[in-house]
Amino acid sequence: MAMKLYTYFRSSAAFRVRIALNLKGIAYEAAPVHLLKGEQNEPRYMQHNPQGLVPALEDGEQLILQSGAIIEYLEETHPAPPLLPTDAAGRARVRALSQLIACEIHPLNNLRTLKYLRKHLGQDDDGINAWYRHWVADGLGKFERSLAETAGTAAFCHGDAPGMADCHLVPQIFNAQRYQCDLAPFPITMGVFGRCVALEAFRKAEPSQQPDAN
Amino acid sequence: MAMKLYTYFRSSAAFRVRIALNLKGIAYEAAPVHLLKGEQNEPRYMQHNPQGLVPALEDGEQLILQSGAIIEYLEETHPAPPLLPTDAAGRARVRALSQLIACEIHPLNNLRTLKYLRKHLGQDDDGINAWYRHWVADGLGKFERSLAETAGTAAFCHGDAPGMADCHLVPQIFNAQRYQCDLAPFPITMGVFGRCVALEAFRKAEPSQQPDAN
Repeated sequence: MAMKLYTYFRSSAAFRVRIALNLKGIAYEAAPVHLLKGEQNEPRYMQHNPQGLVPALEDGEQLILQSGAIIEYLEETHPAPPLLPTDAAGRARVRALSQLIACEIHPLNNLRTLKYLRKHLGQDDDGINAWYRHWVADGLGKFERSLAETAGTAAFCHGDAPGMADCHLVPQIFNAQRYQCDLAPFPITMGVFGRCVALEAFRKAEPSQQPDAN
Repeated sequence: MAMKLYTYFRSSAAFRVRIALNLKGIAYEAAPVHLLKGEQNEPRYMQHNPQGLVPALEDGEQLILQSGAIIEYLEETHPAPPLLPTDAAGRARVRALSQLIACEIHPLNNLRTLKYLRKHLGQDDDGINAWYRHWVADGLGKFERSLAETAGTAAFCHGDAPGMADCHLVPQIFNAQRYQCDLAPFPITMGVFGRCVALEAFRKAEPSQQPDAN
């Protein structure tokens, strides 16, 4: 039975998982959940998914939640091609790069956070944009320094094949571009991004290529 | 050579790693970095750590960053006692619970986020507290539902021994208590918390027990 991915075309966490599935060549059925319409909070969705978040991956009887945990699950159940290196220090480096995006940038800039700023803190578009760009500049600055100063960076974030860190990076750059963030200060990062989006696995996972786009 | 942990007594991400080190019985040297004084941004710290964040774990030549990546590294290099179950679905469940805290609650409530709210969005104590409690209530609601509705919950988040999810939960509850969040709606979660803090490994990791406390 094919895996089923609960997804939303613009969710960058879902985008990470779509890339990982494509890199591993795993066929899946896309089940769109419209976040802007609040479908993730409806009982129909919540009764299967206690976290009420997207993405979620259905694999037979299992429902796997949280994008990072889903990618690790795919790595353990479908090891080839690997998205993590084999040595413990290399694996830690790739996870740390991934978590820099998943824990230091994305949560501050996702839909429900921006909604709170607008609704409860009275922020207009300018305030939202300044907030958004602040966390992107701060987080990608740390990301760029990590790529520049720690061993392992090559064509991709770690070595010459795309992996878990690249699955996290690319959706974050798409978001940053949507919010017109200045990406000129991050040349190594953007070089990796360019090499990723030249690949079919990344292109097929892009928001514009999803069945629920528009 | 003993491992060295760059830590700050109140950092909940450092607290997670201190618990994991204690659970695995790994001796380490604590190297305090005073976050309120901004020591994490000083060149002396940044030259070793391109992310400029706490915690960081020095293991011989390696510097491991990001609390989740550090715990996975400890799990791979010091497998006993395990902090993750052996089956892929169970491992995914524990990681998803951990990431629910690390990605959906903590980033919104950490020091630099609250600083931005105060400095750039003009929030006073009341505004900060409302923000803080909102994300705790939302995130712990999802956590409680996950413990209630998915198989695996026992004395601890997953089974009858403490693991990675418990390492994430306990520091988050300490923070929630500091901000006087209402924890009554989360009885299963608080039951697990109570069983964790009865253990020496958790107690020794508490903020008040750290060399840099006060």
